[in-house]
Amino acid sequence: MALPSSLEELIEALRCLPGVGPKSAQRMAYHLLQYNPRGATRLSQAISRAVETLRRCQRCNNFTEAEVCERCVSSRRDATQLCIVEMPVDLNAMEQTHAYNGLYYVLMGRLSPLDGIGPRELAFDRLLARVGDGVVKEVILATNFTNEGEATAHYLYEMLHARGLKVSRIARGVPVGGEIEYTDAATVAQALIERREY
Amino acid sequence: MALPSSLEELIEALRCLPGVGPKSAQRMAYHLLQYNPRGATRLSQAISRAVETLRRCQRCNNFTEAEVCERCVSSRRDATQLCIVEMPVDLNAMEQTHAYNGLYYVLMGRLSPLDGIGPRELAFDRLLARVGDGVVKEVILATNFTNEGEATAHYLYEMLHARGLKVSRIARGVPVGGEIEYTDAATVAQALIERREY
Ligand SMILES: [Zn+2]
Ligand SMILES: [Zn+2]
Repeated sequence: MALPSSLEELIEALRCLPGVGPKSAQRMAYHLLQYNPRGATRLSQAISRAVETLRRCQRCNNFTEAEVCERCVSSRRDATQLCIVEMPVDLNAMEQTHAYNGLYYVLMGRLSPLDGIGPRELAFDRLLARVGDGVVKEVILATNFTNEGEATAHYLYEMLHARGLKVSRIARGVPVGGEIEYTDAATVAQALIERREY
Repeated sequence: MALPSSLEELIEALRCLPGVGPKSAQRMAYHLLQYNPRGATRLSQAISRAVETLRRCQRCNNFTEAEVCERCVSSRRDATQLCIVEMPVDLNAMEQTHAYNGLYYVLMGRLSPLDGIGPRELAFDRLLARVGDGVVKEVILATNFTNEGEATAHYLYEMLHARGLKVSRIARGVPVGGEIEYTDAATVAQALIERREY
C-alpha cells in the first residue's frame, strides 16, 4: 500500500535540497500540501524561473539575469580593485560591511583536490582573463580561512603574483577555521581594512 | 545593488518550507542553482504535479490521486476497525508496525482551541458520516499523547461513544508527551496491541 506516486515523487525530489533527509522531506511535502498549496505553486514557479533566467556574469562569475551584472557595469565601483571570494554568499557578506567599493570575482568553489576540484574545475583561466584587463591593479583574496580556502588563496597568490599583480589577503580578523558567511559585518570590515600584502 | 529578482524570489519562495529561515533559504537557492539545476527542475515539476493531482480520499481523508484511496477500497483490510490518526505521517508509522489491518481516518490536525482549530475546522461531521457507515464496529483512537492529542481523543471518545460505537485508545506505550511519528515501530506495535477500551 504505497504512497500516491506524485506524493512519493515530491518527497524524493525535495531531497535535492541541502540538509534535507527522508524524514524532513516527508514533513515538508505534507506541510506544503496541507497548509500551503499556494506557497508550493509559487515555489515551483520560482524554481523554474530561476533555473531558466539565471546565468553567470561574464565578468564576475556571479549569478545574474544579464550578460554582465549590474555591479560589474556600475561606474560607481572602483574597477582597479578586484576581490576574489569563494561563493555568492561571501560576496553578499562583503557588501554588507559597506567597507569595500571595488569589484568582485566569484570562484563558485574552492580548491579541493580530494573532491577532484582543481584549477581547471574552477576555470582559473577565466579568472586570469578577467584580472588581465589592464584596469585591475590590486587583487584582494577573500577566500575563507578554512584549510581549503587558505590553500586556494596561496595558489591564487602564486598564480597572480607571477603575472606582476599586487595581491593582498584580507586580515585574519575572521576567526581561524571560520567562514566569512557566518562572520558579523564589523569583523569582516576590520579584516578588510587590515588586509596585508601577500 | 540588489540580487537578481528571480534569485530574490526563489529565496523568498523557499521560506514556505517548514523550518527554513532566510539564511538556509539562501543556501538552498545557491545550492540548487550551482550544483543541481536538474534536481531543481525536477523539484519544480514534482511540486506542481503534486499540488494538481493530490486530493483527499473521500473515506479516510488522506492524500490520494483517486476519489477513494487504494487502502479504503482494499478487500484485504478489516473494515470493521477504524483507526483515527492526526496526520498522514502517523498513518505511515502505524502501517510500518504491521500490527494493524483495519482502515484509517486522518484528521489532518488535532483540536487546538488557542489556534482556532475546533471540531468544525477538522470537519468532524465528515468523520461522523464515515463511522456511521454501518460496517465500522470499533474506533481506535491513535492521536498523539501530547496535551492536544489527548484532548482530541477525549473529545472524539465522548462524541463517538454517545453514538453507541465501541471506542478504544492505543496504549500509552508511546512515551508521554511523545509523538507517534518519532516512536519506533516496536513500541507503536505494543501500544496498538495493548489498547484499552476508552
Ligand atoms: Zn558581474
Ligand atoms: Zn482512503
